This record gives sequence, structure tokens and C-alpha cells, in this order.
Amino acid sequence: MSTLIKGGTVVNATGAVAADVLVDGEKIVALLAPGFPVQADRTIDAAGKYVIPGGIDAHTHMEMPFGGTFSADTFETGTIAAAWGGTTTIIDFAVQVKGTSLLSTLDKWHGKADGRCAVDYGFHMIVSDVTDTSLKEMESCIDAGVNTFKMFMAYPGVFYATDGEILRAMQKARETGATIMMHAENGIAIDQLVAQALAQGRTDPVEHGLTRPAELEGEATSRAITLAKVTGSPLYIVHLSAAQALDAVTKARDTGQNVFAETCPQYLYLSLEDLAKPDFEGSKYVASPPLRPKEHQSELWRGLRTNDLSVVSTDHCPFCFKDQKELGRGDFSKIPNGMPGVEHRMDLLHQGVVAGEITLERWVEICSTTPARMFGLHPRKGVIAPGADADVVVYDPNARQVISAATHHMNVDYSAYEGMEITGKVDTVLSRGRVVVDAGGFHGSAGHGKFLSRELNQYLV
Amino acid sequence: MSTLIKGGTVVNATGAVAADVLVDGEKIVALLAPGFPVQADRTIDAAGKYVIPGGIDAHTHMEMPFGGTFSADTFETGTIAAAWGGTTTIIDFAVQVKGTSLLSTLDKWHGKADGRCAVDYGFHMIVSDVTDTSLKEMESCIDAGVNTFKMFMAYPGVFYATDGEILRAMQKARETGATIMMHAENGIAIDQLVAQALAQGRTDPVEHGLTRPAELEGEATSRAITLAKVTGSPLYIVHLSAAQALDAVTKARDTGQNVFAETCPQYLYLSLEDLAKPDFEGSKYVASPPLRPKEHQSELWRGLRTNDLSVVSTDHCPFCFKDQKELGRGDFSKIPNGMPGVEHRMDLLHQGVVAGEITLERWVEICSTTPARMFGLHPRKGVIAPGADADVVVYDPNARQVISAATHHMNVDYSAYEGMEITGKVDTVLSRGRVVVDAGGFHGSAGHGKFLSRELNQYLV
Amino acid sequence: MSTLIKGGTVVNATGAVAADVLVDGEKIVALLAPGFPVQADRTIDAAGKYVIPGGIDAHTHMEMPFGGTFSADTFETGTIAAAWGGTTTIIDFAVQVKGTSLLSTLDKWHGKADGRCAVDYGFHMIVSDVTDTSLKEMESCIDAGVNTFKMFMAYPGVFYATDGEILRAMQKARETGATIMMHAENGIAIDQLVAQALAQGRTDPVEHGLTRPAELEGEATSRAITLAKVTGSPLYIVHLSAAQALDAVTKARDTGQNVFAETCPQYLYLSLEDLAKPDFEGSKYVASPPLRPKEHQSELWRGLRTNDLSVVSTDHCPFCFKDQKELGRGDFSKIPNGMPGVEHRMDLLHQGVVAGEITLERWVEICSTTPARMFGLHPRKGVIAPGADADVVVYDPNARQVISAATHHMNVDYSAYEGMEITGKVDTVLSRGRVVVDAGGFHGSAGHGKFLSRELNQYLV
Amino acid sequence: MSTLIKGGTVVNATGAVAADVLVDGEKIVALLAPGFPVQADRTIDAAGKYVIPGGIDAHTHMEMPFGGTFSADTFETGTIAAAWGGTTTIIDFAVQVKGTSLLSTLDKWHGKADGRCAVDYGFHMIVSDVTDTSLKEMESCIDAGVNTFKMFMAYPGVFYATDGEILRAMQKARETGATIMMHAENGIAIDQLVAQALAQGRTDPVEHGLTRPAELEGEATSRAITLAKVTGSPLYIVHLSAAQALDAVTKARDTGQNVFAETCPQYLYLSLEDLAKPDFEGSKYVASPPLRPKEHQSELWRGLRTNDLSVVSTDHCPFCFKDQKELGRGDFSKIPNGMPGVEHRMDLLHQGVVAGEITLERWVEICSTTPARMFGLHPRKGVIAPGADADVVVYDPNARQVISAATHHMNVDYSAYEGMEITGKVDTVLSRGRVVVDAGGFHGSAGHGKFLSRELNQYLV
Repeated sequence: MSTLIKGGTVVNATGAVAADVLVDGEKIVALLAPGFPVQADRTIDAAGKYVIPGGIDAHTHMEMPFGGTFSADTFETGTIAAAWGGTTTIIDFAVQVKGTSLLSTLDKWHGKADGRCAVDYGFHMIVSDVTDTSLKEMESCIDAGVNTFKMFMAYPGVFYATDGEILRAMQKARETGATIMMHAENGIAIDQLVAQALAQGRTDPVEHGLTRPAELEGEATSRAITLAKVTGSPLYIVHLSAAQALDAVTKARDTGQNVFAETCPQYLYLSLEDLAKPDFEGSKYVASPPLRPKEHQSELWRGLRTNDLSVVSTDHCPFCFKDQKELGRGDFSKIPNGMPGVEHRMDLLHQGVVAGEITLERWVEICSTTPARMFGLHPRKGVIAPGADADVVVYDPNARQVISAATHHMNVDYSAYEGMEITGKVDTVLSRGRVVVDAGGFHGSAGHGKFLSRELNQYLV
Repeated sequence: MSTLIKGGTVVNATGAVAADVLVDGEKIVALLAPGFPVQADRTIDAAGKYVIPGGIDAHTHMEMPFGGTFSADTFETGTIAAAWGGTTTIIDFAVQVKGTSLLSTLDKWHGKADGRCAVDYGFHMIVSDVTDTSLKEMESCIDAGVNTFKMFMAYPGVFYATDGEILRAMQKARETGATIMMHAENGIAIDQLVAQALAQGRTDPVEHGLTRPAELEGEATSRAITLAKVTGSPLYIVHLSAAQALDAVTKARDTGQNVFAETCPQYLYLSLEDLAKPDFEGSKYVASPPLRPKEHQSELWRGLRTNDLSVVSTDHCPFCFKDQKELGRGDFSKIPNGMPGVEHRMDLLHQGVVAGEITLERWVEICSTTPARMFGLHPRKGVIAPGADADVVVYDPNARQVISAATHHMNVDYSAYEGMEITGKVDTVLSRGRVVVDAGGFHGSAGHGKFLSRELNQYLV
Repeated sequence: MSTLIKGGTVVNATGAVAADVLVDGEKIVALLAPGFPVQADRTIDAAGKYVIPGGIDAHTHMEMPFGGTFSADTFETGTIAAAWGGTTTIIDFAVQVKGTSLLSTLDKWHGKADGRCAVDYGFHMIVSDVTDTSLKEMESCIDAGVNTFKMFMAYPGVFYATDGEILRAMQKARETGATIMMHAENGIAIDQLVAQALAQGRTDPVEHGLTRPAELEGEATSRAITLAKVTGSPLYIVHLSAAQALDAVTKARDTGQNVFAETCPQYLYLSLEDLAKPDFEGSKYVASPPLRPKEHQSELWRGLRTNDLSVVSTDHCPFCFKDQKELGRGDFSKIPNGMPGVEHRMDLLHQGVVAGEITLERWVEICSTTPARMFGLHPRKGVIAPGADADVVVYDPNARQVISAATHHMNVDYSAYEGMEITGKVDTVLSRGRVVVDAGGFHGSAGHGKFLSRELNQYLV
Repeated sequence: MSTLIKGGTVVNATGAVAADVLVDGEKIVALLAPGFPVQADRTIDAAGKYVIPGGIDAHTHMEMPFGGTFSADTFETGTIAAAWGGTTTIIDFAVQVKGTSLLSTLDKWHGKADGRCAVDYGFHMIVSDVTDTSLKEMESCIDAGVNTFKMFMAYPGVFYATDGEILRAMQKARETGATIMMHAENGIAIDQLVAQALAQGRTDPVEHGLTRPAELEGEATSRAITLAKVTGSPLYIVHLSAAQALDAVTKARDTGQNVFAETCPQYLYLSLEDLAKPDFEGSKYVASPPLRPKEHQSELWRGLRTNDLSVVSTDHCPFCFKDQKELGRGDFSKIPNGMPGVEHRMDLLHQGVVAGEITLERWVEICSTTPARMFGLHPRKGVIAPGADADVVVYDPNARQVISAATHHMNVDYSAYEGMEITGKVDTVLSRGRVVVDAGGFHGSAGHGKFLSRELNQYLV
């Protein structure tokens, strides 16, 4: 089965060209000057539209256990929503429970995801337990295509790793070529502030933000960077939200250190004001790091422009307002942490193009090309080029839509962007050559998505 | 006439893929999965080789008048040498003489170059005279495809522009979308140091370096950046050589200001020690800014990695040792400023890939893709993509060669890199579809190269 | 004639102690534990008051020629006003006219000041002409007790020195131990902005501020610092007004470079809003550098705390509103540049103590001790210690007063601080042992003040 | 009993003056112009010598328990050695054992020191246990004259405090006006490096340095600064040794944050090379933070000049080579941490004056005046002024001596500076009016020294 995507503007990370794209089976087999004569079983008209590599969301949490509940999207519902939004690859997190092995954890996550995803998927591994055994197991994970290991400087008693544990894991990363991903907040200090707030009867969702000051994200980011420098390990800061943290990343990158960071749409568009919404509405916006005062947003856009922020992921981790967020009424520290987002990343970042914050090419780069390169999927993913997987999105830059829980496809009862008007819309989505979204309908299937065994990161500052 | 470049690794700025490249006439018409069946009049076997977009040297000076003589390469000899080295586009400088008009200057340079170039070429305009008239003429230059205007903070009495003149030109750039290019050295202070050295009888070539301290390049770079900030103009620093200047560029870019910089191979590989060679040998290395102490080199490589240096050009401006450099014997300030280099840029930078200083993709980006984007030639140049000009280089990464004046094709009697061993070699070069270099022979012709009317720079930090 | 100042708190730059001060003739001869039995001809009761070294205003312009007029205070009226305000030393500027000699300039200024000052005075020399002769004359000036040479990066055609001239003067400073003082604004660029404003019919006083952007003070400050670094000369930035300039000074000092800066009360308390006052009122606030937007003020206070700003001087240069400021009605560039201030510096800075911006000791340090050390007057001035000149101020920290032109003693028809309420007031002032202000009356005399031949600056970062 | 110190140069932190000093009982009662006629029971001839406030060593550890042994100097031997070296005040550390109370700790230390010291002394409190009780007890300590609380980011399991504990203690400091002192090394990460070294059989003293990289001191310093910023607490970094840590302090101070730091003579004069001495000689130089590579030294001197380092203390903590350092033969981690130094601080820093690194005034400031101000002893200590304690040192700047264990008075069998030639020597020392060192003899007595109840720090950046 071959498909010709005809008449569009192919946008890769280094520029846009008018070209037709020929897909054969699961692969792109040719980029062609417009009108170059070829045969195809099917033709998609992309006139007036962008033809871009499918989005890669390098940070999602489907059906993730958290505080006695699970994030509301399964791998099935979550990846279908992703597809609707032009994201054809997710990288989710397998979560080691302290005392269990990394490999059994990986098995468990394969058990959850395999056969259920609508688009391709990979895993990062959350390392909760640093022992001689788990360090050794990191090697097996790498062999199994999972070579990025996330650690937490937050959440003492749960995922928290000491600086000594981080150091050891980074030494192993240095040795193997793996990358350490870091949730960089000083959880030890934050926990004191949280306890003090609760002791003082400050229990509303906004306290979640007030007890996690931006300085403590900046501090942890600096600390992680220093440990990475001491060990020679590359470092990838997840969900960077604060100007102070960005500043630390910028300075490290200025010296040529291999430090990378992602931010998320919520930090670009939402703020502490949302967390302060009355009637427990603020709980919808509880995630960690917390939403920051508005003035951080322009800094983050600056970082996206200057490549001090290299990737935009969603940290998609939805919890329903009605049943789940409710767990923290009267105690903000019990509100499940996370927000939905996997469906709207491409659209939200396209607003940055519309507003002149980033260029068109940069949109593709931070949403697809760089995550592919950074996470060992390139040139299979992240580029419109012969030989690449035919993960292709036809995007209409002029269409208009309004985000709403009423119309979205994520399995969650609210949208953090309810009512937001968007310029641009996904038209057609191919996943490995198969049209999974088209003409306003979903034509894919759970189980179409395949596990992606990833190569080591070759990307350098 | 169609050509299929088969079996190679196509390297674009965002990554490498195995693909065949189909050229039809002057254009690339298809990128194809290896072995995709197409007809072609001719096939080039690129197995085991890189297929890259032709190099773009954004800074050359062919037959440039300087101190009563002319740089030794004509547009013919210089562009043939460029082609030998895998560079298929040069951007040279039209040089306004004070008191003359920009448009007549442009005509004069067209008179020199048109019909004589072996590869495509464009012009920047050196503005020596900032007047109401010349500012108005900038608009006509832009219409004529010349939208980058170089100014000098050095060379008082010759090209030197005052800060007030720079400010006015930058205001015009801001208004029109043009870019100001800057030779950033504090020439006013330097001239005092030069006069003092001569008065003290210090006349050797090394004094050229000693009287132009790196701090004064850093200072001028900072000053240009401030003037660009005050006016809102983009700024492109040419031939950045000093860590202090890089530091200023890095800091400006960190804030998101549209400041860009190029360096040159001589600053990456040569040093003040070369300028200090005895028997007037040092004169071969006289260029401005001067070669710096070795410790600057690692900083420049760092800048190339972190994109604080975005482009590598050559500042090719050859003067023969025997007749021309000789003019400055006994008075270093009379040594014609400039070094040959257009032929060896791609090879020299490939050594950075071999040494692990930069990635393969970054090599293509700084030598071709970014100059194309920055100077309004993209996607016509700088990328292997359908619709692009078929400026294609087949590069053998494993071949070995030795640089020597005995074998180079530039019209100058010495090489600054004499005896340097190089890993990698240009195999075949196509310029707009025509094979101009192949099998160790030159098959192009003077006059094949066309003038490139360039678009405005759309490239942002 | 001996005087015992009894019962007060002696405040020196490193701290306050309860002590009596015995003055004999022109000198302090003893600091004594309270009540230590000594004889004195006269006793001053300082109970509940501070006993501080007399203020040193290192930057005044009495009867200075400017644009066809003269600043309104003579050395007599100006030094009497100084005495009223607790300032017992001024350092004024001899102004070289281009083409004349430094020594004749010095003679001229001695002619103006000698025999007319009410308090002690010294001179800095403004170097308008850098020639072999004037550089040589710098040595004679140093011998004559004038070892600080001011240059201008502003005012092209008047005082402006090129970077080459600055470099030469700095080399001479390095050689002789002199210090270069710098008015750091990029006058060349500013003049373009001024001309453009006038050409556009923007003629109000506020345009004075708008055409001299803070960035161009930052730039010139950085440039002066670089030239000082290249030459090894110490550098003193006068009347620093902008955060950008402070940032440059801070960074240089962080490296240990001998760079110093003063600010003035007007930059701490007044702002661009004052310049924008209607009905030409703004002209009262025209000085260069201009008053800045309010947000610069907290940065300057920060600089005073951290010693990145080491001195507060006034740049006292009064022009009457009625006759003199009037010269620039309809053309802001013709408004005489300068503001009155010599009388209120000690009071205004004491407000910083009251507000907790600076400590009591720091008040003494920046207003008296550091200028004494920096300008070669220590330990003769700037400290309450045996052997020092008995320039002593008894200051009542709890008295209250209101600043007004109706009550001030400067020879100018307005106050820039009209109506401002002040906590603290000068009670008694001794100048070399003589009570010149006391009980609300002036008891000094023109001619009491002596010329101060100053030592070389021994003060290091 | 009165004493007149006659004919010397009185050096205070803001400058030197020729003056006589009259002491009556325990106090300085007058500073007098040379030759001012007064009666005294005794006269000390200070002609050609400096008369300076007695040194204050704000960081000593007498008879401190460490790893099963005690530092070798008792309060008696240690303070006698201090007196010999011109130090008339020490501030030692009371060491809370986890699980015990702060007040009982303080009692215990009073038990050790009271009645045994030869010069005055105060205490800081080491807080090992942060609990509601100990936080409350901090208030009682403050009432008892101990208002500076030291915490450790190093030594997990011993003194180590978590970031949460530090945060709480800093909040208490903010509330009470106390100051937190910090041993800033990332002990958690260091312990991993130590364990790895031992596991690899790397057991020599030099490993002590290699397993405690400068980056981890920089990191901890940054972290402490952030926690201080979040809480609003002042912060004093003890024994800063690394350029990275200094950089963090400098940047914080540039913003006006109340962050202070001390360094120690060993970091100015000794280096990692000493730690690498063969035959276990390196053990003599084991202290934490460790001696650094030589290139850090010039940075520290820079910091002393620019006041980014405000104090020089010794961290005097001697262990005998023969019996005590020996405990770590075969396992560097068991070598008692500490070096002798209390006797030589004034002399060693005077070498900085001789070498032109610091001025004479700055020597007095960092060795006496600033510690007095910072630690609530001013104006009782740290200044030659009426009313101050008569802690006075007559210092001969031209005398010469050689440091040696054979001649020093500390109770330890080696000197870290063995054979070092010193210009300058203590001549006479008065402690509260009593001559305790003179004419090469010790005339003081154990028990003369009194406990100093200290005021809160009023010193600001």
C-alpha cells in the first residue's frame, strides 16, 4: 500500500520546502519535487498545509500509580488522544517500586502497554532504588532499548534519590552512554515548607505552588548539573518550569556541558493564578513543579528560541477532577500531581509560531526532531526523509478550533485550556504509513503502536 | 540531463539518512530510499560516502583592493579553488570607496564577477560612507539582492565607521530587514598601539598580533551588540577570533537578542605562534583580527558546539608571500591583511568531526545550512531536499590528503596549513546539477556560476 | 585655641564609639573615653549626636563655563553652602580648553578659587586635549597636587576624547600612579539620537533623557573598563546612573580590577519622571547622564551597600531656572547641563540610613572616608583620629527639616528636592578646627579654605 | 595601672595614623597625637612598629572530640599559642552531640574553657540535631551570648544536616537575628567517592583531596545560599577553599544578599601537592575542605581584596602526626581532620601585605575588625579606639622569623609551614590591658581570658 502526500509544504527542523512525500508500507520512500511523477495507491492532498514529522511526546504517564490511584488515561486512551493531536510517538515511564527490580518493572510496563497503544511508544525507566543490583540492571535495560533513567530530587520517601545515589547512577550513565533525566526540585526542603503550611492550616491548592518556590527548582537543577559535571554524565532536566532553573541550564550549556532541558505547554501558558482559582478549581492545575508566576513564561519562550530548552513534552498525567483531584480537598499535599496534555501539545506550540515566539522550523524541532535525536529514535522518527517511519502529520495552519473537555479525546473530565482558541489543526495523521486520523475521524487501532527499542543518545550540546 | 547519486549517506543539518539523490537539470528532484527504482542519465556511486549540500563560504574577498595591491585570487581562480574544496557558493564583498555610491559599487563588483565565477556567488556590501544618500541606497541594494551590509570598527580613515554611523545604518537595517555585519575591533585604540610599536622599532609580523589585543575585539563586539540592542537591528559578527568576543556574543544570545557570529578555520587551527615565525614567515599569517594565543581555540570550538558561533567562513583574502606580503617587511602595519582559505574550509572543519569536537550534522550546518538560512539562500541552498539547487558534494570521510601550496588551486604561493594531514576529501562536486569536480579533475567553467539575489534573513536566535 | 566635642557618638567608617574629641588648633589631637579629663578652651556638647568626619564632595563644578554661561555658584557661595550641609572639602574640576595647556588651566582655576573658599578644596583636571605636551604636563599637575584626570566619552567636539586618546592618557596614568576619571556615555551615538529627536520636533526636556539611553552609559562604562584593563590603569567612573553601568563595574571589580565608581543623590532619589514635568519644569532636572527610570534606583542602593559604588558625590553644577535653564527652551540640547546639590548630600544620604538601605558607618564611608582615601587626602581628612584635620561635623540624627530653595544657601533659584522632608540635620561644623557653622549661623569666611595638594591614590579594590 | 603605647603607627581598618595609645585598666581610653602629654604608669615604645587591634580568630577547635581522639590543644595551650601570635580573641565551637541539648552542650564547653583561657573567647554552637526543642534552645543560646550556629552539609551520620533541617534553622535565624554558619561540602556525594576510593585500594592521604572535588564545595555553597535566600537568613560560609565556592559567594553578594565567607591561611599558602607528600607526610595536611590545586590560591587572594571573602580564620584543629594522624594510615578517611594554625594567622596574612596582595588596613580588617563586627564584638574588640578593650598588638613589620614546630607554642608535633620565612613579628601583646607577650616571653596566665557574650551581627553586605 503506497500513499502520496501531495502539494504540501514539508517542514523539517532546518527549513521548509515544497515537496511531495511518497510513503510505501511503513516507510517514507521518497521526497519529491512537487508534481514529480510517481504512482501511489492513494493520494492525500496537502495543498496549503504543512507536512511534518509526527510529534514525539517524550514525557507521558499513562495509567501511572500515584497516591493510591492511577492516572486516568490508559495506554490505549492516551495514545489515541495523542494521535488526534498529531503525536505519533510517546515515551512513557516505567516506575520502579523500591525493592523491586528494574527488569521486572520493565516487564510490568510492557504488560500494560504492549498490544494496547495506538501509536509507537518507548519507555524511560524511573529508578527509585540505587543498589549494586539495580545499577547492573541498567545495562540490561539499555540492551532492552531503555537507556534513559529518571531520578527524583523531590518526593522524599517515594522516588527521592540522594545525591550519592544520583552520583552512582550518573557514573553508570557515563560508563554506558545512558542519559540521566532529572526531576529537579529540592524535595527535602519543600517537604518542610509543605508541613509548615499544613500545620498553619493553609490547605488550598495554591499552597502547592507557594510551598515549592522557584528558587528550590533552580537549586536542584544547579546541583544536578554539578553532579553531572563531576561524573561526566549527560543530563536531561524534565519539565523545567522556573527562570532560575533555566538560568542554570543556560550557564552550563554556555560552557559546552551536555545538559539539556524540556519544558511543558502548561508552563508556557498557565500560571500560579490558575492554581489560585477558587472552589478547588485550582486542583486541576496541580502538578510538580508547580505553575509559576506569569513572569517566568517569557523566559521559557526565550529558552525555546535559544535552544537552552531543547524539547517540549507534556508530562501528561491526567487525574479526573471529580474523583481523583478530590482526594486532596482539605490537604493540597494529597492532590494527585499531574495534568492532561498529550493531545494539545502540537497545537499549543503552534501558537508560538503564530505569535512569532518561535519559527515554524523550530516548532518541528522541539516537538519532534530533537526528541527523536535526543532519545535515540532518529532518523527513524523526527524527520520527513526517505527511510524514516511514515509518521506524518498534515497540519492545516489556518484552521481554527477551541480546546474543550467536551471535545477532547483524553480520558479526563476537564481541560486545563478550556475555551482556548487555537489557530491550526491536525488534518491527517499517519502512523508508520497507516492513516490513523483523517477527516475528523480516528481510523487507527489499539495495538497498532509498536514498542521502540531506542539507540543511545548521540546528541551533543 | 539527470543524475542519480546512489548509495551514499545524505547528511543534512538535523541528521544523516541512507538515501539516493536524484538530480534533474539544475535541481534536486527527489530523495529516495536506497534502491528506489528511478531512471537517470548518469549515476554517481556514493557508497561509503557522505552526500552533503555544497559548502557556502559567506566571507571571501576575491581581487580585493588593499593597500595598493589586490588579493591574489580573481573571481575565476577563487571560485575554482572553492569548487575543488566542496564549496559551491561564495558570498563576496563589494567595497564602497568613500565618496562613491553603493549602487555604482555594486555595478563595479558585478563587472568583476559576472561571467567569471565557477560556482554561484552573492555579494555583501561594505558601507564605508554613511550619508543620507547611502542609507537610501541600502534599500536599492536590498532590492538588488544584497541585503547584508558590513561595517568596520577598525581601520580608521579607511573603512572605519563611527558609532553614530553604525547606529544610523542599524536603524536602516531595523527598518528594512537587512542585517549589519561587523568587523569588531577597536581600531581607534589599536592604531595608537600600532603607532607606539613602530615608534619603538617593533616592526616584525608578530607585532600585528601584539598591537591588536583580544580585549579590544571583545570590547568592540560588546559595543556593536549594544548598538544593535538600542536600534533593534540583527547583528552578525564576522571572523570572531577571541574568547572575549565570544563571551559577549554568548551573553547576548542568552537573552534572546538576534546576534550571530562566524569564526574562520585559521582561528581554530593557527595561533600567535605562527605569527611569530622567523624570517618574515609570520607575514603569511597576518590577517585581522590577528591569530590569537592557542588557548582561544578551545573556546571557539565550544562556541561552534553550542551555536554561539553559527557559521564558519574563511575570510579568504590571499596575498602572495613573495610579492605582496613583502610590502610590509620592516613595517608590519603595511603587510597586506589576509590569508588564503576558500579551498580548505570543508576539509578543515571535517577534522573537527574526526576529533569529536562537532557532530557530523553540525559540520554541515555551520558550513552550509546555517549560512544558507542566515543569508537568504535557503531552501535553494544549504540542504539536500527536493526543489533545492543541485549543489551537492560527495565527500569521502576516509580518504587522506596533505594540504600543500604545491597542490592547492588557489592563486597564491603558500599555504597557511602546509603539510597538514587531513582525513576526508571531496570526491565529486555538483554545482546546479553540473559535475564540476570529479575523479581528481575540474570539469566546470568560469561563467557557470550565477549571481544569487538573496532573500532577507529570516533566521532568529 | 582648643575645643572638646563632648558626649557624642564618634562614627568612623568601621564603626561607632562613644568618645570625646579634642581639637587643638587645626588638628584633632585626641579621641578620649567619655569623660576622660582634659582641658579645653571651648566645649561643644554632642550628647545624643553623631560626631563624624566632615563630608568630602569629590565632584563639584563651581562657576564652570558651559554653553556660554557659568554655573551659578562661585567658589565662595558654593563652599559656604557646602559647609552648611556638613561638607568640609570639595574637589572641583579645572577645565582645559582645547589648545591651552594644563598648567595654565590649573593656574586659572587657582585664580578663581584661591582666597575665596570657605572650606578646603582640591582640583581634578579635565583633559580636553591629549597631545604629547599635555601628557607630559600631567606629570607637573601631579607634582602640583592634582593627580586625577577626567575625560569624556560624551560631548563630541567639546570635551570628547577618542578611545586612542583615552588609551594614551591611561598609559600615562599607569606610569605615574594617577587615576583616570571617566564620564562614560557614548556621546557619538547619543549625538545622532539627539539630532534625530530635534529633526522630529521633539524638543522638551524629557527628550534629554530619552536620547541618552541607559544602554549607552553601560556600553561606555564597559569600554572604559576594557581600556583600563589593557593599559593597567585604575579607573574611576563619575556620576554612574544606570544599572547597566553598575553591572559592568560590578563584574570588573569581581575580577579584582581597580575600577571604582561614584553615584550622586539625584540618581538615588529623582527619576525620568522629574525630567518629564510639564511647563519646562523638567529643565531643572537636566544633567548628564540623565535621570533614569525609577527602577534603576534600587540597583544603585544595592551598589552602595556592596561597595560596587564606593563614593557619593554631587556633580553640583547649578544653573538658575529663570535665566539659564531657559536657554534651552525649544531645544533641550541647549539646556545647561547640571543640578544643584552640594548642600544636601549628607542629609540625603542619611535618609538611606534611616530607611535601612545603608548602615551608619557606610554613610560616613561613602560620604567622607572613601573619597579621602581614593583621592589622596587620608588620613588628613575622612576620619576622626588624632593627627587628622579637625574637619568635624556634629550631626543630629533626630532633627527634622524640609529642603527648599527658600532656605538653602546655594546661589540658585530652585531646589531639585523642594519640599522633601529630611530626618537629621547638621548641628555644628568645624573646618580645620574653626567652627564655621553652629546654632543655625554661618561663622566661617571666604578664604578660610585652603587648597589641598593631594597624594596619589593608594586605594585598591 | 595605665600604659602608654608611644610612637607607633596605629592601624585601623580604614587607615593608619601616627598616634599614641593610652590604656587604663582593661580599656583603651585615648588615642593621642604623637607626643600629646599624658601620664602613664608604664610606656611601651612602638617606634617603627604597627599598633593594631588584637587578632580575632573566629574559627578554632580546642580539645575537640573527633573520631575517638581530641584535637591536641587545650583551651589553655591553644590560647597561649594564640597570644604568642597576636590573636587576643578566639571563637571556638561547642559541639552538640545528637540527642543532647544545646544548653547542656554549652555548659559542657564552658566547663572546658572557663578559667583556662589565656585570652578572651566566645563560642559558636554546632547544631547536630534540628528538633523543635533544639530550635527553641537556639533562643536561649542567643540570650547566653552564643548567636551563631554552625551546620554541616558534610559528614553524614555525624554532623550532617538535611536541607530541611537547614531550612528550619535558617528560619529560626531569620526570626531571631542569629547567623547560620555553614560547612559547605556535599557530604552525601563525597561519601560515595570516598567509599569507591577505599574499595579500589586508594588509601593515601592525597585521596582525601581527590574524593572531595572543588565542584562539590561550590555546589553546597550555592545550595546554602539558595536556602538562605528562601528563608531570608544571613549566611556565613566557613573555611571557603575553592574558586567555585567563591564564585557562588561573589554572585550572591553582587545581588546584595547577606552572604559572607571566611577563608583560612592553609588555603592561601598550601595546596594539593602538600597532601600528596610521600611517607604519610600528606596526613599532616588533611583537613576539610581539603587543600586545593594551587590555581585556587590567586582566586582566594582576589576574594580577600574584593571583600567577597571577609574574614580569615584558622580552623585551628591540631592533631599530632605521631599518634593521631597515624590513625588513618592505610585508610585516609580515618585520618583526623584538621591542621594547627592559631599561632601564625597574623604573620601569614602579613605576608600578603608584603607581597602587595592586600593593603595594610585590609590585613587588620580581615584579621580583626570584620570578625569583631560580624560576630557582635565591635566596638569592644577589633578597633583601636577609646572605650575598646585594650587588646593591642605591637607588630614589628621588619622583623624576620622562621616558622617551625621546634619553636611554636601550639601543642602539636609538626608545623604545616615548617621552614617558611616570615617578614614581620609580634612584639608585644596586651589582652584587656595586661601585657601577655613581650620581649620574647609569655607573661599571661590561664584564666585571664574571659568569656565573651556576643551581640547579634549588625554587619550587612
